[in-house]
Amino acid sequence: MAVKTDLDPAIAARLKRNPDGLVAAIVRAHDSGDVLMLAWMDDEALHRTLTSGRATYWSRSRQEYWVKGATSGHFQYVKSVALDCDGDALLVTVEQVGAACHTGAPNCFFDELPVSTPAAFKPAEEL
Amino acid sequence: MAVKTDLDPAIAARLKRNPDGLVAAIVRAHDSGDVLMLAWMDDEALHRTLTSGRATYWSRSRQEYWVKGATSGHFQYVKSVALDCDGDALLVTVEQVGAACHTGAPNCFFDELPVSTPAAFKPAEEL
Repeated sequence: MAVKTDLDPAIAARLKRNPDGLVAAIVRAHDSGDVLMLAWMDDEALHRTLTSGRATYWSRSRQEYWVKGATSGHFQYVKSVALDCDGDALLVTVEQVGAACHTGAPNCFFDELPVSTPAAFKPAEEL
Repeated sequence: MAVKTDLDPAIAARLKRNPDGLVAAIVRAHDSGDVLMLAWMDDEALHRTLTSGRATYWSRSRQEYWVKGATSGHFQYVKSVALDCDGDALLVTVEQVGAACHTGAPNCFFDELPVSTPAAFKPAEEL
């Protein structure tokens, strides 16, 4: 992960990377606001995302840079990028071409888990 | 992190945890769809989130369970939870009481980074 990067040092100084040198990137659709996926960026992936127009991640499984859509055509055109308050997560807002998920689903979060809510903990307006 | 947990084994079997035993939890507002924050859950935090009605995380800094709002009053009432396609990220949709961010901001993603988009990479409809 010791790739030479042109990321603005002022931005790099605000990142709080995990032990693999990565920050989490939440990807959101510009039009619908839909949360599409979670991916990971090192400094250079963030630099490429901020300057190339295309969302670019670090693939942990392939250990290489990954321009989303490079093989599928499902590019993510970058609209905005925001860093969170403690510097370890990014919110990347994109114009998504086609399906965001490699399964063909519009987003990666289609496995709903069962939620049970005790009545005592519901907000007052719902009781 | 070897806490005994009552998380449904069928759900536990689908989780792909990081070396610390955690999965990322993207938190989204039920009403606005706003992406509020990124937090982390181990199996027991997920169990408590699915069954207590209140979003509960694992605090990496304090190394303890963290019922969001327990000290601030800014609870997150759980509406739905979805697991992503590869099992290492959750999307938690909540009714947020007050500010989600500890800074008092509505969400944690208020540090906008500068994005430059080469004209050649813009979607055709924008050229």
